[in-house]
Amino acid sequence: MIITLKKGAPKQEIEKLHRHFEDKGLKVSLIYGDNFDVFGLVGDTSRLYDRDILANEWVANVQRVSAPYKLANRMFHPEDTIVDVGGVKIGGTSPIVIMAGPCAVESKEQILRIGQEVKDAGASLLRGGAYKPRTSPYSFQGMGYEGLLALKEAGNAVGLPIVSELMSADKIDEFAENADLVQIGARNMQNFDLLKAVGHMKKPVLLKRGMSATIEDWIMSAEYIMANGNPNVIFCERGIRTFEKYTRNTMDLAVIPILKERTHLPVVIDPSHATGSWSLIEPMALAAVAAGADGLMIEVHDKPEEALSDGAQSLKPEKFHTLIEDCRKVAAAVGREIA
Amino acid sequence: MIITLKKGAPKQEIEKLHRHFEDKGLKVSLIYGDNFDVFGLVGDTSRLYDRDILANEWVANVQRVSAPYKLANRMFHPEDTIVDVGGVKIGGTSPIVIMAGPCAVESKEQILRIGQEVKDAGASLLRGGAYKPRTSPYSFQGMGYEGLLALKEAGNAVGLPIVSELMSADKIDEFAENADLVQIGARNMQNFDLLKAVGHMKKPVLLKRGMSATIEDWIMSAEYIMANGNPNVIFCERGIRTFEKYTRNTMDLAVIPILKERTHLPVVIDPSHATGSWSLIEPMALAAVAAGADGLMIEVHDKPEEALSDGAQSLKPEKFHTLIEDCRKVAAAVGREIA
Amino acid sequence: MIITLKKGAPKQEIEKLHRHFEDKGLKVSLIYGDNFDVFGLVGDTSRLYDRDILANEWVANVQRVSAPYKLANRMFHPEDTIVDVGGVKIGGTSPIVIMAGPCAVESKEQILRIGQEVKDAGASLLRGGAYKPRTSPYSFQGMGYEGLLALKEAGNAVGLPIVSELMSADKIDEFAENADLVQIGARNMQNFDLLKAVGHMKKPVLLKRGMSATIEDWIMSAEYIMANGNPNVIFCERGIRTFEKYTRNTMDLAVIPILKERTHLPVVIDPSHATGSWSLIEPMALAAVAAGADGLMIEVHDKPEEALSDGAQSLKPEKFHTLIEDCRKVAAAVGREIA
Amino acid sequence: MIITLKKGAPKQEIEKLHRHFEDKGLKVSLIYGDNFDVFGLVGDTSRLYDRDILANEWVANVQRVSAPYKLANRMFHPEDTIVDVGGVKIGGTSPIVIMAGPCAVESKEQILRIGQEVKDAGASLLRGGAYKPRTSPYSFQGMGYEGLLALKEAGNAVGLPIVSELMSADKIDEFAENADLVQIGARNMQNFDLLKAVGHMKKPVLLKRGMSATIEDWIMSAEYIMANGNPNVIFCERGIRTFEKYTRNTMDLAVIPILKERTHLPVVIDPSHATGSWSLIEPMALAAVAAGADGLMIEVHDKPEEALSDGAQSLKPEKFHTLIEDCRKVAAAVGREIA
Repeated sequence: MIITLKKGAPKQEIEKLHRHFEDKGLKVSLIYGDNFDVFGLVGDTSRLYDRDILANEWVANVQRVSAPYKLANRMFHPEDTIVDVGGVKIGGTSPIVIMAGPCAVESKEQILRIGQEVKDAGASLLRGGAYKPRTSPYSFQGMGYEGLLALKEAGNAVGLPIVSELMSADKIDEFAENADLVQIGARNMQNFDLLKAVGHMKKPVLLKRGMSATIEDWIMSAEYIMANGNPNVIFCERGIRTFEKYTRNTMDLAVIPILKERTHLPVVIDPSHATGSWSLIEPMALAAVAAGADGLMIEVHDKPEEALSDGAQSLKPEKFHTLIEDCRKVAAAVGREIA
Repeated sequence: MIITLKKGAPKQEIEKLHRHFEDKGLKVSLIYGDNFDVFGLVGDTSRLYDRDILANEWVANVQRVSAPYKLANRMFHPEDTIVDVGGVKIGGTSPIVIMAGPCAVESKEQILRIGQEVKDAGASLLRGGAYKPRTSPYSFQGMGYEGLLALKEAGNAVGLPIVSELMSADKIDEFAENADLVQIGARNMQNFDLLKAVGHMKKPVLLKRGMSATIEDWIMSAEYIMANGNPNVIFCERGIRTFEKYTRNTMDLAVIPILKERTHLPVVIDPSHATGSWSLIEPMALAAVAAGADGLMIEVHDKPEEALSDGAQSLKPEKFHTLIEDCRKVAAAVGREIA
Repeated sequence: MIITLKKGAPKQEIEKLHRHFEDKGLKVSLIYGDNFDVFGLVGDTSRLYDRDILANEWVANVQRVSAPYKLANRMFHPEDTIVDVGGVKIGGTSPIVIMAGPCAVESKEQILRIGQEVKDAGASLLRGGAYKPRTSPYSFQGMGYEGLLALKEAGNAVGLPIVSELMSADKIDEFAENADLVQIGARNMQNFDLLKAVGHMKKPVLLKRGMSATIEDWIMSAEYIMANGNPNVIFCERGIRTFEKYTRNTMDLAVIPILKERTHLPVVIDPSHATGSWSLIEPMALAAVAAGADGLMIEVHDKPEEALSDGAQSLKPEKFHTLIEDCRKVAAAVGREIA
Repeated sequence: MIITLKKGAPKQEIEKLHRHFEDKGLKVSLIYGDNFDVFGLVGDTSRLYDRDILANEWVANVQRVSAPYKLANRMFHPEDTIVDVGGVKIGGTSPIVIMAGPCAVESKEQILRIGQEVKDAGASLLRGGAYKPRTSPYSFQGMGYEGLLALKEAGNAVGLPIVSELMSADKIDEFAENADLVQIGARNMQNFDLLKAVGHMKKPVLLKRGMSATIEDWIMSAEYIMANGNPNVIFCERGIRTFEKYTRNTMDLAVIPILKERTHLPVVIDPSHATGSWSLIEPMALAAVAAGADGLMIEVHDKPEEALSDGAQSLKPEKFHTLIEDCRKVAAAVGREIA
């Protein structure tokens, strides 16, 4: 960690800081500059928080050299983590996994029908929202526990593990019992109590990126889950919020190589939420595969215009079928295959 | 609501949509254009969600005319809502309220000492974090329930109502019992289960703006709380995330006149989080008062360089004292006073 | 165009507006709502500017139905525009074109040497900056005219057309004489005088996206060039500015399908500027090809650590060679080929 | 400057870098860490560019300690710069200057009429656009030279110096001859050729912030002008682009204390462009005064609904009159006055 001091800092202040850092077991180097003096700290700085040091009025700037995350850091864990979701492997050199299904579970029949469609097309996981985070209190809020059971039943019937979003720690038992992969949504990426709670679960976690989360924030949220005992975290990019108005969000594919360089965890891309528009899903899905994604999450609905949630960004089954076929070709071109 | 149809939409599709909207009790007008046709819907459209209609492949665009919120909407509730927080009135033409205290409660002594300081300087509410949302799992997470009790005791001792952040619905009873104002943090602004839970409380709620929340998103989160039974919501701006690197966030003061025009709820500004730097707090606080804020939330710490959280954005008591004096002058200049 | 009026607008104001629009040759429909009244305007609204109408104090909102661009609009020009750059075709179903070379021309030898390298690897155009837009006045500003001549000479020697950035209208003649493709940089995307000037040129134009330009702004800048007489515009995405700190910019690949749906012009992607980091170029280039790009612009330097500009985002020739080979495979997988 | 090296960098690479920096006259310190090694460079690093050093594949990170600007830097020029605009002083402890007038000069009569209105209300400078940067090629582009002359004539008639936007270096002579203050618009903030050109002028320059410019970018653009010989630069904030849709831009008032701490140049705020809405101008203008602005730029039009440009963000003269009276009170409250 590099700490820049304003010129003219009183000698006793500098000495106090020096002792403060040594007391924390760090080795301290001091460089005298023309306009600033600089401390270099060597040792385990992961427990130091940049902004706390900034509180000293003689400190001009604090710059971290080592990353603030350890468990997620590839530097200390060079091999890829491969996450097992109900028998399906995700990450490393495993085949690319397609997770698909409707935005929301709307009925037993609907999820069974669409579950069969996505299974037939080649998906490896069935997705469906039982508890729905909706911007308006007047919108459909999901079927709740009944929806989760319907999803599980459909998954069993068609032979696919399931993934669904957990919105509140008081539903942990429902998900521990019924889900294969527990999704934390973008709006809860920094709901730290929920992160701690899923850290205590045995089920793997799909961690969506917050709408304005930096990649570092996002890795720190994974670190929360891991530090609480659960090593099986999968990142899922769903677009970030920008000034652009023609898309719902801006999909950031650079996260794939960056997360793979800095962490050892799998990365999945959700082009449905990232674009908000069914006509953009296929090109963005192909791009994600080309860039090295370990999986895709795709919304599929057989009657999108009647969907209770997010029909605008759902593919019809026949288009989803084509999408998987096209993904297979691109995957082969980059030396991978679709699960 | 205005719905633009792509030219060439089949007649039966147009008729189906027409019936669909009429079945919802809406009056439908149809305008034929050169390149597009347009439906105008009149009636209660608050239960229609723009993106659901977009799912129809012949729909090019959906534009809301009426706002999607009703309970928070000034159009249907023209008088200012004045919120009573432990006897302190906030909103309307009430005096401007200063909420102040440390970022985190660190000990009984610390909160009592700082509580007395801010009371003496002229604050009307005592703030202090008991449960702290920290980006890193390795940072100080707050004293928890013990901290909340220490805050309450300090508030009682110095004679100030208290405000503290609630991070999880399972702590509702602690806050119902002990807090005067329940803060929902930026990271939980769209934690809808938590919003519903505080909607069932009797205590007023301070709703911070999410880091990348539009004003409309923010009002919809207030609507969640109100729709669940709690009409006493106060907005608190704490800056939004932008590309700028010299400040922690970008403080958006235009929210004051906008929220006051569109809603009837009070608006408080937090220049500590919005800037992240103690040297910027005073000018931004004065600006907020000049722009019409109903209150300010200011972090104060007597030893910021030893603070366990966010010392960099905390004012020392003597600077806080000056700030209040300066705020009094600006308040008088705009025809208001400090409580 | 849809114009929402505040309820309670005086009858004579409504009639005045009605006449105002009819006088412009538009057909006007009026829908009376519960809380708002709405005008629908049919006809050529491209000369109406939304914000001008908003100036009327009774107007609550203005929403465009038709796009504000005409010459660039695919609705009125359904066939793909194919741009000829010194004999190389770009757009439509033409093979994907790779433009490569150093960020800046540094010497005759340097550009000839790198020009040969990129030609051998399979590039179709040679790029090189003669006039460089640098954030600091103390950085290398480019070799100027001498650099442009060296680039042309190198292009001739190795048999590649050239592309270079024009920063100022007073250099138009230099570029008309020597360049095959005239680049307008991100920082000049809304330098309207420069857009008008290249609109009068016969040479095709590569229009980079501004750092915070919406896609609509960008299309409007193309419209400027086209409205001044030059139909040969190629879009080039180079990333937008967001809060993310691990990359220089955020590359927005959704522009490819969106621009191709809304306009008839070719789209090129620049992963060097979009990421700012050589290690991210290859995965992002493959993603761009998979998403349907008509071309790539890649910075290549044989000694990046000695480059006078942007070495951090330059590929070494051997890595560039691999990149082209890998792009060929992905292109084949999506039914295209590399030129 | 602090340079972080990846662990395992070959000894000869480290030595090469060491020599490279020493050859530039810098003193080099080396700190060996557990996971990284760090170089500290002492001396004049303003000619080093961070990204050039990053090109070395063993460099993980580059962090500047000293600012990259010198002429604008308060550290080397502690006294406030006071700019004289046709006899009106701006900056330091000078009274706050109000610049007002229509967005665009529309006719001799219009600018004379509005010029008299703003003079009577208390403005110190008359603004008016002769050359207009418009997003659409089909919008009114300004009256050009004739408009500039009309503005000058009106300024003379009512006794106010004038400010107008220069969009292209080929109009420098017109502005040198006729304008008192030369405005560089947001879209040209990084049109470096134009910055160099106004750097050679004798007239002071009003430099608007680019739509997504960081404060550092903006200061660097001022540095361009100063490095070319013109020390009289005034910053003008006009809002930045964010995801918010209820305002045209987000006004960033923190720039006032930040620019005053880091530079010695005056800071003016333009609440008309920053908000895009006349009803938001007054509260934002008062906030700017409270935060320490040296001036305000306000759009005023007597018939905004007939304005040829930006009527939506123009105040009517009577509202402008009230605004100045209200600004006087807030100015007095913060120890200043309106010119």
